[in-house]
Amino acid sequence: MSKPYIEIVKSAKYRLTGNGSRNIGMLMESFEGIDPSTDSDAYGNGAVINDFESELAELLGKEKAVFFPSGTMAQQIAMRMWSDKKGLRKVAYHPLCHLEIHEQDGMKVLHHLESILLGSKDRLFTIEDLKSINEPIAALLIELPQREIGGQLPSYDALVEISYYCRDKGIKLHLDGARLFEALPYYGKSAKEICSLFDSVYVSFYKGLGGIAGAVLAGGTDFIEEAKLWKRRHGGDLISLYPYIISAKYNLDKRMGKMKQYWMHAKTIAERLNKMKGVKTVPDVPVCNMFHAYFDMSKETAENISTSVIEKYNIAIVTNISAIDADTCKSELSFGDSCSLIPEESLKEALDQLELEFSRL
Amino acid sequence: MSKPYIEIVKSAKYRLTGNGSRNIGMLMESFEGIDPSTDSDAYGNGAVINDFESELAELLGKEKAVFFPSGTMAQQIAMRMWSDKKGLRKVAYHPLCHLEIHEQDGMKVLHHLESILLGSKDRLFTIEDLKSINEPIAALLIELPQREIGGQLPSYDALVEISYYCRDKGIKLHLDGARLFEALPYYGKSAKEICSLFDSVYVSFYKGLGGIAGAVLAGGTDFIEEAKLWKRRHGGDLISLYPYIISAKYNLDKRMGKMKQYWMHAKTIAERLNKMKGVKTVPDVPVCNMFHAYFDMSKETAENISTSVIEKYNIAIVTNISAIDADTCKSELSFGDSCSLIPEESLKEALDQLELEFSRL
Repeated sequence: MSKPYIEIVKSAKYRLTGNGSRNIGMLMESFEGIDPSTDSDAYGNGAVINDFESELAELLGKEKAVFFPSGTMAQQIAMRMWSDKKGLRKVAYHPLCHLEIHEQDGMKVLHHLESILLGSKDRLFTIEDLKSINEPIAALLIELPQREIGGQLPSYDALVEISYYCRDKGIKLHLDGARLFEALPYYGKSAKEICSLFDSVYVSFYKGLGGIAGAVLAGGTDFIEEAKLWKRRHGGDLISLYPYIISAKYNLDKRMGKMKQYWMHAKTIAERLNKMKGVKTVPDVPVCNMFHAYFDMSKETAENISTSVIEKYNIAIVTNISAIDADTCKSELSFGDSCSLIPEESLKEALDQLELEFSRL
Repeated sequence: MSKPYIEIVKSAKYRLTGNGSRNIGMLMESFEGIDPSTDSDAYGNGAVINDFESELAELLGKEKAVFFPSGTMAQQIAMRMWSDKKGLRKVAYHPLCHLEIHEQDGMKVLHHLESILLGSKDRLFTIEDLKSINEPIAALLIELPQREIGGQLPSYDALVEISYYCRDKGIKLHLDGARLFEALPYYGKSAKEICSLFDSVYVSFYKGLGGIAGAVLAGGTDFIEEAKLWKRRHGGDLISLYPYIISAKYNLDKRMGKMKQYWMHAKTIAERLNKMKGVKTVPDVPVCNMFHAYFDMSKETAENISTSVIEKYNIAIVTNISAIDADTCKSELSFGDSCSLIPEESLKEALDQLELEFSRL
């Protein structure tokens, strides 16, 4: 039996995407220089958690923030609280929203909320989609960027229009900012400016930022104080969350300013891939550090070709490949620090080799 | 304004209870000797999590185990699954069960389960309390030891009787083993022998074991596989849980064999305290590493006296004191490694000083 593709990727010296291996050294690196006598947080209290929450509240321009072990927990709770406040059980979001497809229906099963899916799976939803809902909703969730369609972003004007519409209609607007920092260069705006359009905001620390895990939910003081009760109900009010908090702060400081660089890498590579036979990226021109690449070939063929490039150049161009059907497959490419580590000439040759192999199909 | 008592305790060189400061050095110690290239777990998969789960399943004598970020999450989920299987929304437990008093009613609000409280707050419940319920219940939760009444334990025969009764009546029996390892010396039995009386078991790693956080739920294969879905729904299926897992394994290996020693310390100190004027321990003779001490004096007086002992001997006899009413207060004492670090003669003198101060009241 041949080696699984994931193992072949791991054996490559270089990867085009990501921030390096998610190994235990990541945690050790974050903790270098931290005084071992620093007190743990204790059930949401203590400087190590509260200082970081204050820093994030400030960064996101909200009154308060609370650190969560996961975005799944933070966002279900946000949806639940807005629904309770409005006395409505319905919330709207994109058909490929994380809450809809990746959480085993937690929001529905634990909180008895219903979802209204806006627009269609293959594009961003628009204000027209929102206006076409003919029933009252408590909240609208917008994910910036929309991960499952290659990290697409609405224009800033479109966001403003939706925000005003929601305020006018009494719909609470929540930002799924799992990759918010990654989206900022496109808007040319600060996190605070973007977040000012939203009533509540969630951000994550382990996507482009490269932390271990963890999330922050930010909003008004009352909202966040109530979120802490829900965090306890969900089993997220751990005695110690500092392993995630310290790595979140370390990696936020390290990578927040690099998002434009990651985006530029994504643009360059997408442009190169789009020139290859049988390859198409979504979006055509990336608007943040990520995109999806679609290949007119089977998963097996794509893996074999990528493997041959790894064997020759020690560079993994794509680290994940999933089948769409027997003849097509796709990959998600998210750029981080790893790209810059590859010698320029080797990368050029590896991409040329990829193009050559594709042209022979 | 005088310094808060907690700060005075922190300044003491020695503490009678616990395993030392819950500082960040704890994590660093656990990670010493771990290869930095060790892969992270990834959403419940990977050797670092699966090997530990297998180890715990074996230790607890169950088919499978799953690591959770918290016991709050693990136990609500266990109660929910047993309730779903029985088609009944009622579960029974002690009036001071963690789910009843420390979880902001998560089980009721998220899972719509009702609790039936057995017996009274100041004692262990008995099989007679269980038999007196005149309605069907899905599950019974037993906490070993019962923390909120000083860590009391039913006899092994009483446990067996309850277990047989539950099997006979089709009631699922769940073990809240937050401090299970602490209870084993009293029974003189293995974890596996105790757990064989139960359908599902939760254990924690940060009480007597002194880890950072985290829990394991163990049971039959189907039960645990379904628990993983609920873990995702709750937002507990983190991309990386290894910071807790590695510390759990490190501290389990370090302290599992020391529980009898901790218990002996608890017995010795309880005996000494019970000789002092105005002091009474619950239980009178500890059955594990913990007990509660009740003081016939105000919280302020107890703190002042304890402070004077700290100032003179650099030893904190009690690290927490809570008021019961204006004239009485209590403290929870849980023994770990710290006790052994105190020079014997100093400890004797500090306890003599405490006794002297109490005798003057």
